[in-house]
Amino acid sequence: MDETTTRAYILLHNVSKKHNVGTLTRIATAFNVTTIVLTGNAHYNVFGCQGASAYAKFVHKRTLEDAVRWLKEDCACEIVGVEIDESAVPLPDARHAWCGEQPNVRSRAFFMGNEGHGLSEREISLCDKLVYIPQYGVGSTASLNVAVAAGVVLSAFAEAAAFAQCNKQGAKFDVAERPRRTQTRGFAEDDEEREMRIQARRLAREKAAHGDDDDDIDNPPPSLDTLFSES
Amino acid sequence: MDETTTRAYILLHNVSKKHNVGTLTRIATAFNVTTIVLTGNAHYNVFGCQGASAYAKFVHKRTLEDAVRWLKEDCACEIVGVEIDESAVPLPDARHAWCGEQPNVRSRAFFMGNEGHGLSEREISLCDKLVYIPQYGVGSTASLNVAVAAGVVLSAFAEAAAFAQCNKQGAKFDVAERPRRTQTRGFAEDDEEREMRIQARRLAREKAAHGDDDDDIDNPPPSLDTLFSES
Ligand SMILES: C[S@@+](CC[C@H](N)C(=O)[O-])C[C@H]1O[C@@H](n2cnc3c(N)ncnc32)[C@H](O)[C@@H]1O
Ligand SMILES: C[S@@+](CC[C@H](N)C(=O)[O-])C[C@H]1O[C@@H](n2cnc3c(N)ncnc32)[C@H](O)[C@@H]1O
Repeated sequence: MDETTTRAYILLHNVSKKHNVGTLTRIATAFNVTTIVLTGNAHYNVFGCQGASAYAKFVHKRTLEDAVRWLKEDCACEIVGVEIDESAVPLPDARHAWCGEQPNVRSRAFFMGNEGHGLSEREISLCDKLVYIPQYGVGSTASLNVAVAAGVVLSAFAEAAAFAQCNKQGAKFDVAERPRRTQTRGFAEDDEEREMRIQARRLAREKAAHGDDDDDIDNPPPSLDTLFSES
Repeated sequence: MDETTTRAYILLHNVSKKHNVGTLTRIATAFNVTTIVLTGNAHYNVFGCQGASAYAKFVHKRTLEDAVRWLKEDCACEIVGVEIDESAVPLPDARHAWCGEQPNVRSRAFFMGNEGHGLSEREISLCDKLVYIPQYGVGSTASLNVAVAAGVVLSAFAEAAAFAQCNKQGAKFDVAERPRRTQTRGFAEDDEEREMRIQARRLAREKAAHGDDDDDIDNPPPSLDTLFSES
């Protein structure tokens, strides 16, 4: 992977609320996220994405650890957990630091928490950094909706990374011609198939070495066809 | 009104999608918006606000012109339309300009467009300024969801206005004790009643002066009880 090109990724683990993936996909692609990495259970659909799923690449990894390894090693990413936490940096400070890396802003994967319970301690332990979005005033809501939080963070990163702005006309941004479905599917399936071969080999090695203690191992990964049904 | 205190307002005209007001209320209060101004038809509920509606003040004005006048004259606001438009300023530039006003950042009312068709030309003509949120990449979606757009803009304004940050503990921001319902209601109704008396007088004057050409005039404003039902 070309390490001089800044890329933004989204990482989601065990997506629970069906509609969030669709909403997140629309937001992600608006801010130049080209790959959304899903791990573990991924029974969801992309309802609410307004067609944006055609422009995003979905990658499925069986475990969170696999996803993190892929993002760090193959994509040269820093993993940024987006969560309210004592050790989290306020977003304006993070944006400032990202801007300071110009012209070689490092790629980042933004790990969004579950709508109900947020990022778990285990999930947080896999992050390189945490950022939070300051909230203001007397206090009226404990947190933002995950989609809004993603929008705020991704727009800050896109600004800092100085991604190329999309053209607009009148009251709309231009929408590129919809990529041919077969092509997108094809790519995703190739990746997934290759990934499954690699994982199968690693799993066999790991099993031999220290027994089977990964709770995801017994569930075969769902096929991409059932995963990515657009409704 | 104390003109040295910076305040953020939200302005909504003829809200159509029922749930958006609730979602917008949660976002607005997270970024220290204390007053949400609604005009015209306002058949909505605050579903989705996660209780945040108890912390927001809702003001209903019969016409958009009344709302704009109130915001400018009584609240010393600049009206900022949030819309993708040729004449709109990119949000990072607007944030920079707002920061430059410190320590006396002017109060702003952010006018959000309708989810379906955005701000109309008439609505745009009532704004002092327009801002848009840059979108990036090849182009995958013509616009953001209105709630996400509000979150991105309001967080930028809260940062620039240097509003006091809300305290947080663990994975949550503090939530202040819920204001007593009767008190909030009481305030809103007092405002509304006073407002209706003033409007009735002005309408009578206007009718006398140049005939009745306001399309909202014939619809009596709905009572606050039917307006603000929390479901
Ligand atoms: C509804 S929140 C999850 C629960 C939240 N931790 C709580 O206890 O209220 C959903 C997700 O949105 C993101 N999020 C929401 N508000 C945030 C904020 N102010 N700063 C950073 N992330 C936030 C995080 O990824 C979080 O896990
Ligand atoms: C779904 S958009 C409305 C339709 C949009 N003008 C279109 O033609 O696709 C809903 C509202 O969200 C806000 N909005 C969405 N994306 C925006 C952006 N990139 N910049 C500024 N406002 C935006 C505007 O207030 C807009 O009226």
